[in-house]
Amino acid sequence: MSVDPVELTQRLVRCPSVTPDEGGALSLLEELLSGAGFACTRVERNGVQNLFARWGDGGNARVFGFNGHTDVVPVGDREAWTHDPFGAEIVDGVLYGRGATDMKSGVAAFVAAAVEFVRETPPEGSVVLAITGDEEGDAVDGTRALLDWMAEHGERMDVCLVGEPTCPETMGEMIKIGRRGSLTAHITATGVQGHSAYPHRAKNPLPAMAKLVDRLSSATLDEGTEHFDPSTLAVTTVDTGNPANNVIPAACRAGVNIRFNDAHSSASLTEWLQAEANKVAVETGIDIAMTVKVSGESFLTPPGDLSDLVAKAVQAETGVAPKLSTTGGTSDARFVKDHCPVVEFGLVGQTMHQVDERVEVAQIAQLKGIYTRILRDYFA
Amino acid sequence: MSVDPVELTQRLVRCPSVTPDEGGALSLLEELLSGAGFACTRVERNGVQNLFARWGDGGNARVFGFNGHTDVVPVGDREAWTHDPFGAEIVDGVLYGRGATDMKSGVAAFVAAAVEFVRETPPEGSVVLAITGDEEGDAVDGTRALLDWMAEHGERMDVCLVGEPTCPETMGEMIKIGRRGSLTAHITATGVQGHSAYPHRAKNPLPAMAKLVDRLSSATLDEGTEHFDPSTLAVTTVDTGNPANNVIPAACRAGVNIRFNDAHSSASLTEWLQAEANKVAVETGIDIAMTVKVSGESFLTPPGDLSDLVAKAVQAETGVAPKLSTTGGTSDARFVKDHCPVVEFGLVGQTMHQVDERVEVAQIAQLKGIYTRILRDYFA
Ligand SMILES: [Zn+2]
Ligand SMILES: [Zn+2]
Repeated sequence: MSVDPVELTQRLVRCPSVTPDEGGALSLLEELLSGAGFACTRVERNGVQNLFARWGDGGNARVFGFNGHTDVVPVGDREAWTHDPFGAEIVDGVLYGRGATDMKSGVAAFVAAAVEFVRETPPEGSVVLAITGDEEGDAVDGTRALLDWMAEHGERMDVCLVGEPTCPETMGEMIKIGRRGSLTAHITATGVQGHSAYPHRAKNPLPAMAKLVDRLSSATLDEGTEHFDPSTLAVTTVDTGNPANNVIPAACRAGVNIRFNDAHSSASLTEWLQAEANKVAVETGIDIAMTVKVSGESFLTPPGDLSDLVAKAVQAETGVAPKLSTTGGTSDARFVKDHCPVVEFGLVGQTMHQVDERVEVAQIAQLKGIYTRILRDYFA
Repeated sequence: MSVDPVELTQRLVRCPSVTPDEGGALSLLEELLSGAGFACTRVERNGVQNLFARWGDGGNARVFGFNGHTDVVPVGDREAWTHDPFGAEIVDGVLYGRGATDMKSGVAAFVAAAVEFVRETPPEGSVVLAITGDEEGDAVDGTRALLDWMAEHGERMDVCLVGEPTCPETMGEMIKIGRRGSLTAHITATGVQGHSAYPHRAKNPLPAMAKLVDRLSSATLDEGTEHFDPSTLAVTTVDTGNPANNVIPAACRAGVNIRFNDAHSSASLTEWLQAEANKVAVETGIDIAMTVKVSGESFLTPPGDLSDLVAKAVQAETGVAPKLSTTGGTSDARFVKDHCPVVEFGLVGQTMHQVDERVEVAQIAQLKGIYTRILRDYFA
């Protein structure tokens, strides 16, 4: 049995698997992988579907793992798409659709590579595919559920490659060996409502919030570390919802997202945020409350065997010497890193989450070639 | 025919005349005033109802005018009311209901005073009642429509008393001889949307907006003038509406309300606002656009005959020497001032626009007494 990774990408894109809907994508993969000799288990938690597939007995010999997701973000402004977001049309060598780059093509490439590899050169060892349907959402019942299930059932990966798109512009240019951490603070400033004409009788929370947003936005968190870019802070929203220009509002809410490197932890940043909020609260007399939600701590798989393995394969297949990077958003690697060494490599991710998300079909084939070479070298 | 101002207040409160609904309030007054010998005209503009009533021939002899409104602001959180907002219940000498202070009681008091005065001591001259159903809204088709209609039809007032509540705490303590002006600026900061993890690829409008809000809120517009309190600025809302903490938003909107004294004009303040916005735009590279809506310029009826007349009557009826003030929000006096000298006097306004809006019934009777004395002294 042979799997065409482009055709498989098309079939996956045609599954409307917007988080948390499975949309038929995992069933399609399960059928395909079962037919290729993989032992498949559907791992469901809180109604979310995931797929664990293993070729080989998972015994004491080496286990190589791939991780990826089949869920996609919503289509957004459907009118703005020039192609059906679930149509997977190929025009002039470019495949269009939601998930085309993030990351149905990546899943298709590692599935095609794994199926072909175990058939043509059955390794002494096992290949595990841990595929989730919950990456774009809160991701609490996705890869985490798979890893929890694996721990309970004595399953393991010795190393893991996450197939997310990692290349900013050119195929092959970037491998991710870690990620910054991410946290979101929800801030509420509360004063006393009143009439705009009598501001001294009210306590307007907006100047206090503006002061806090200005200070947080102006702060330099660090200058970067050995393997990481500088940490960044983005105020993502400030909302009041007061339609009446003659009313001073009682409260105002803001959201702040911090992507942080290994100079910080979510705890140290939470402390800093609260100290800044307290200063403004004291200066203005406005009550400022905060809740912080941590998406993940920063992590690093230090350059070594695994990154060398992947880099060598990438260079051999593309001619490009990949950079080891820790840039970008969070991914499920933040969960996998607690299980085994993990790096990420995939195709060019420029259109991910955008209207007219698309991928060059040649890249999908190339990615399959890279993944195949990685498997071959790993088990050599 | 005699009119009990408390009972008339009750009947008016029971009319659900939430702007722009007439709610039966003007019809009730028209019937009552017609029966008392007033020539009544319903002045309608763009579907908004107003009532012009004149006793006397409106000829060359003096014309005293009253101005007021029967429309009310919405009930708000109805569950929070301890009395039916349209019930006009009287408990322990206090009348409850929307409009109880602002300003159905004021309208009832001047209607009762005028009806009694013209019957008992018919003056050489005329009494005009210009009553609008559109004060709490945009007020473009309310008192302005009445004044336009009057100009077209050769009607006039030589002086005018607006019956809005003017006393902060104690009956009789304050007459308003002017008002600050009011304008609202709607500000939009526009950057470039992006992913929170890559802030350098986006242009976040929120820090720029925060900087502008901080600066505007911190500015001292003036220290007050001879007859006016300092001008005030209130940022009334800042809104983004971005629910995604991994997205840097493209745009953000704010509302700023300025109440300004005679040290400024709407034009000078608009210029200042735009200069501040431009500075921030240049500093941050964020586009900042602004539209300004002027509710009214500041104005002053300098202390003189009219304020003396009203002050004397207030002191005679209450024993309190009223202060001449220009504090507070806008009122329709801002339109009347272009027609004739205008001052404002009414009862204590503490609960206006609030839940459980209420008035002491004794104050309504006292207000009628004051208005009657003003008419008597004016025509003496
Ligand atoms: Zn992804
Ligand atoms: Zn009013």
